[in-house]
Amino acid sequence: MRCLSCKEEYGTGDAGTCKECYEEASETEEELKREIEDLKSKLTFLRFWSPTENPSGSRSHALGFYDVVLANRSPVFKAMLENEMTESQSGTINITDASYEALRAFVNFMYTAEACIDEHLASELLVLAEKYQVKHLKSYCEKFLVSKLNWDNSVMSYSFAHQHNAKHLLDMALGLITENMDKLTRLDEYTELVEKAPRLVVEIYEAYLSKQVNTAAQKDGSRAI
Amino acid sequence: MRCLSCKEEYGTGDAGTCKECYEEASETEEELKREIEDLKSKLTFLRFWSPTENPSGSRSHALGFYDVVLANRSPVFKAMLENEMTESQSGTINITDASYEALRAFVNFMYTAEACIDEHLASELLVLAEKYQVKHLKSYCEKFLVSKLNWDNSVMSYSFAHQHNAKHLLDMALGLITENMDKLTRLDEYTELVEKAPRLVVEIYEAYLSKQVNTAAQKDGSRAI
Repeated sequence: MRCLSCKEEYGTGDAGTCKECYEEASETEEELKREIEDLKSKLTFLRFWSPTENPSGSRSHALGFYDVVLANRSPVFKAMLENEMTESQSGTINITDASYEALRAFVNFMYTAEACIDEHLASELLVLAEKYQVKHLKSYCEKFLVSKLNWDNSVMSYSFAHQHNAKHLLDMALGLITENMDKLTRLDEYTELVEKAPRLVVEIYEAYLSKQVNTAAQKDGSRAI
Repeated sequence: MRCLSCKEEYGTGDAGTCKECYEEASETEEELKREIEDLKSKLTFLRFWSPTENPSGSRSHALGFYDVVLANRSPVFKAMLENEMTESQSGTINITDASYEALRAFVNFMYTAEACIDEHLASELLVLAEKYQVKHLKSYCEKFLVSKLNWDNSVMSYSFAHQHNAKHLLDMALGLITENMDKLTRLDEYTELVEKAPRLVVEIYEAYLSKQVNTAAQKDGSRAI
């Protein structure tokens, strides 16, 4: 027999696992590694610069605790609070373009790196994260929205991702759309998009075309072999 | 063949891995799981209560940023800063019984959950962690000292662990000592310990005795079978 892992031949006496268990174990390992990556990026998000390692951070001494947390997680808040802006004078930041629910979740995330979200809240939070440049929250929301991607929300997700520079969501939505081009023009969201943002529709067709060209080239390549 | 993982019989066509790769994969999985546990406890240490979830934390609003970080990580600092103590009046905490290096590493750890330590620094930090009840730092130092445990430092580690309630280090050091009882009385540290803390020496002999009794009982047990 040949070992699927080290590719070497072995005898019955040296048998380890069956194929199914080997595949399961490989998947588990991949999952654990992904979990480790997630935890590490959470840690990076929650970690502060220590005052002993970042003497210039002494500027923060004048700020209250909540302000420093916000400044640490968001370069936009940092600029607001540390420069001579209205916010640093009053100690208050006004955010008017978000729902109470989204704002609450947003602030919570700044402290805990966690949020309990549905699709609607994820979209609202992504907008806030984009605006205040909280990268970790943005990718958190993006991952969530990608996990909820389906045919019915694909065009809306594509347009939303475009509007808010969500590259990963954009790629995934575009992939899903170009795989189902035959159904595309029947969607109401398609008709809407043609009216509101025809350039985005053009990009869909361009992506579809380039995919077809690639597939054709690959077929030719394998035929040549 | 029998699969070592699911214990079921399988044919050559369903072969997955050889024994060696199976064992390696199991070890990797264990390691990854340990890493995940480590990362999770770091996260718990670094996470703050969000102000929206912990209204009583508004007390913290009066404190400066650095104070809140310390209060969040250490119940002792919390009490010092929030109650009517000298520290909360002056905003200054005096720590006089630690080296500059240890204090610097201690403060850094409060912000980053990381420390670059050797054995000496780990011992100093463990003392600070015990005093200010920073559990995560204490177990961090303990794990490090356990990894450096050897015959030459075993008695010293044992006595140190006793003094500072480092249960894990204590057990590991005691285990090492009771495995090498024949060499024990030749150690200088042993002679010193008999003079300075004879009760600790008694505990070594008691542990040794109870180990012997257990081993004898196990042997009898297996003979009876």
